Amino acid sequence: MQKPSIPKGTRDFSPEEMAKRNYIFSTIREVFHLYGFQQIETPAMENLSTLMGKYGEEGDKLLFKILNSGDCFAGISDEELREKNPLRFAAKACEKGLRYDLTVPFARFVVQHRNEISFPFKRYQIQPVWRADRPQKGRYREFYQCDGDVVGSDSLINEVELIQIMDEVFHRFGIRVRIKMNNRKILSGIAEIIGEADKIVDITVAIDKLDKIGLENVNEELRSKGLPEEAIERLQPIILLQGSNEEKIATLRNVLAASETGLKGVDELDFILERISHTPIRAELELDLTLARGLNYYTGAIFEVKALDVQIGSITGGGRYDNLTGVFGMEGVSGVGFSFGADRIFDVLNQLDLYPEGSLKGTQLLFVNFGRTEETYLLPLIAKVRQAGIRTELYPEAAKMKKQMGYADAKKIPFVAIVGENEITAGKINLKNMLTGEQELVSLEELIDRF
Amino acid sequence: MQKPSIPKGTRDFSPEEMAKRNYIFSTIREVFHLYGFQQIETPAMENLSTLMGKYGEEGDKLLFKILNSGDCFAGISDEELREKNPLRFAAKACEKGLRYDLTVPFARFVVQHRNEISFPFKRYQIQPVWRADRPQKGRYREFYQCDGDVVGSDSLINEVELIQIMDEVFHRFGIRVRIKMNNRKILSGIAEIIGEADKIVDITVAIDKLDKIGLENVNEELRSKGLPEEAIERLQPIILLQGSNEEKIATLRNVLAASETGLKGVDELDFILERISHTPIRAELELDLTLARGLNYYTGAIFEVKALDVQIGSITGGGRYDNLTGVFGMEGVSGVGFSFGADRIFDVLNQLDLYPEGSLKGTQLLFVNFGRTEETYLLPLIAKVRQAGIRTELYPEAAKMKKQMGYADAKKIPFVAIVGENEITAGKINLKNMLTGEQELVSLEELIDRF
Repeated sequence: MQKPSIPKGTRDFSPEEMAKRNYIFSTIREVFHLYGFQQIETPAMENLSTLMGKYGEEGDKLLFKILNSGDCFAGISDEELREKNPLRFAAKACEKGLRYDLTVPFARFVVQHRNEISFPFKRYQIQPVWRADRPQKGRYREFYQCDGDVVGSDSLINEVELIQIMDEVFHRFGIRVRIKMNNRKILSGIAEIIGEADKIVDITVAIDKLDKIGLENVNEELRSKGLPEEAIERLQPIILLQGSNEEKIATLRNVLAASETGLKGVDELDFILERISHTPIRAELELDLTLARGLNYYTGAIFEVKALDVQIGSITGGGRYDNLTGVFGMEGVSGVGFSFGADRIFDVLNQLDLYPEGSLKGTQLLFVNFGRTEETYLLPLIAKVRQAGIRTELYPEAAKMKKQMGYADAKKIPFVAIVGENEITAGKINLKNMLTGEQELVSLEELIDRF
Repeated sequence: MQKPSIPKGTRDFSPEEMAKRNYIFSTIREVFHLYGFQQIETPAMENLSTLMGKYGEEGDKLLFKILNSGDCFAGISDEELREKNPLRFAAKACEKGLRYDLTVPFARFVVQHRNEISFPFKRYQIQPVWRADRPQKGRYREFYQCDGDVVGSDSLINEVELIQIMDEVFHRFGIRVRIKMNNRKILSGIAEIIGEADKIVDITVAIDKLDKIGLENVNEELRSKGLPEEAIERLQPIILLQGSNEEKIATLRNVLAASETGLKGVDELDFILERISHTPIRAELELDLTLARGLNYYTGAIFEVKALDVQIGSITGGGRYDNLTGVFGMEGVSGVGFSFGADRIFDVLNQLDLYPEGSLKGTQLLFVNFGRTEETYLLPLIAKVRQAGIRTELYPEAAKMKKQMGYADAKKIPFVAIVGENEITAGKINLKNMLTGEQELVSLEELIDRF
């Protein structure tokens, strides 16, 4: 008999882990609701025609494909079979695949239900996704995504609200964060003024190293990437961009004066920062030109959240995109969205030990079982304790005291109630604090008051 | 461009449906916690070696199998390929399959984590499962199961608590129910005393028709199934079993006097009914000998819950089983469990319109957007409203009033706040009740008090 196991890159979640994950998700949900976001869910399986071609060639390979039930060889010629080409075979033998992210299913949802949706549509979605990635530390083949998007509105107030939501969520978690912001149009403007549109990633990567390797080496790296001296010259104020967000914006306005697109990006950032200044925000906001995530996708604002007290990658990210649904034939749906990194937030909360007391609350009270007579006495009494909302267990059999106490210990139940013959006669409950070992005779009312 | 769609037998859940489903699941979760149950989750994908052979030959065919990523033809000979045998091919080309139910993954979990679990282990699990069934009305290829089990304890107190949990859950839903109970040992005892062990299903099916077709026809059906006259004769008191649960138990004790197993089943039922009589139960409890679900699986108590006010199949069911984990090499783990039928509960709550006010609460208040000046005034004000826990939106752009009001209507937002130049000057908010049309000038504090 082989020892049972689960597929590599997947996880079981224990009761303790579930309690923590539920705390994370319910905190995020509450904040989403406070801002008028509505939850949706989509099926784990999508038609492969919906998924293929949306994540690049590499992504197509990382999709988990589901073998057609019934005859998977139907419609496949002997010749095709002899080819043994996995991708071409899968294209015929598999109609369905597992969700790879929440964005494409959301786009599909918006198009399919366009007539039932009132725009602007603020939706959030918390569901697992699956990727046939090589599993490694911190990277899983099944993991939850937690996305919020507003589609069908160009207004930058949506960006402002997303920042407020991130701020509120991390405030509730007690995680100190810096929210980094950039704008795709600024990056395009920079490329425009130096005449090197295809070098934008090289440039942001090089600038990002300034603190580590110094200006000389940054310039050297840019040279090695083929940037002409003149372009590097023009980049100097951008590489050295420093100061407050206002100062950075002033410099950028200057440098990007010749780029209409670049100035539009600066205006957008400026507007967002100005609007957010009217709200009580607690996170640090930082304009960071090296922030270049989702460049193929984002068209305006780009966000990323970093935890200040833990060394870890970004714990949330997002941005503004155009034309979410164009690929499904519905043009002109712009939106802005972001994704909470639930697994990393879990790690940060663990490292900083930030789960609030009560958030992981399990059973609060265990009644020891002495047998049938005591059970008869306890059953209606325990019903009352539960009616008062106290999470209560009766040990299911009259096992040895040591075993019952061991169960309370293992389950970290803070109080044990001992009701034997004497207590029944006295109409009292012997309440034992498992942490201090203290015992106390109390009435049912007193017991309920204790919790 | 094809219109996007989802695989047949799967569903998107709209915001309204999600709110209802969340109400159902959170109600069930709360009650589970009250009784000391802990949540776990297992991966959507299990190794096929874990799943195959656990659901019968038919079940093996209904498993969704995931094509190995990378080269799915690895290890498959040309000869095997030429065979074009879908099941044999899948056995080599697919290592993983989608979860078919929550029971087998739970058994796998218990064995894999036996050293971390403190028994008796009370676990609940709410996750989707997938079956390649032919889709039809009310039957889906992806649906949620919602299971609770206690494993590692033989005590019948667990059965009593499961009944209490069912009772409490349906009480909270406001659904009037009858909980039907039977015991596998009683059915075995009946088979024993009439000497027809293999006819037990025929017998329960025939008895179940008594009300419809009458005693003569029931006996005729039993004859047609090959039961000898003597056996039918002995069955008469069981076919005609009537009265209170106590009366039925007395009759059964009499009829089953010669069957040790049968009497044990009667004792178990008797014990459970006696124990439950000490708790404030609201559901009707009915001993029903025709209840024969899960006969291949259950070894003791069998439960089923029927809604009294809606014509629909059972909305919850379960029972006691032996040896949950034997198939994974861990012997002697008995348990008792049940499964809430979330989709049917959803239907019953819809039909009876039982969702409590507030359980489906979306955005409570929409602020109309008149432009930048008003926004500047509103941003800090709205932050305060949200801080008070009121679900609030600011329409993201200064669109026409009609459009903004239409948005509130479509989203069923009950109150709209109108703050223009006059209101700002007066330091007031014009609060419009969308149901009555009434408008009222209120201060921020008054507005917060209103909710």
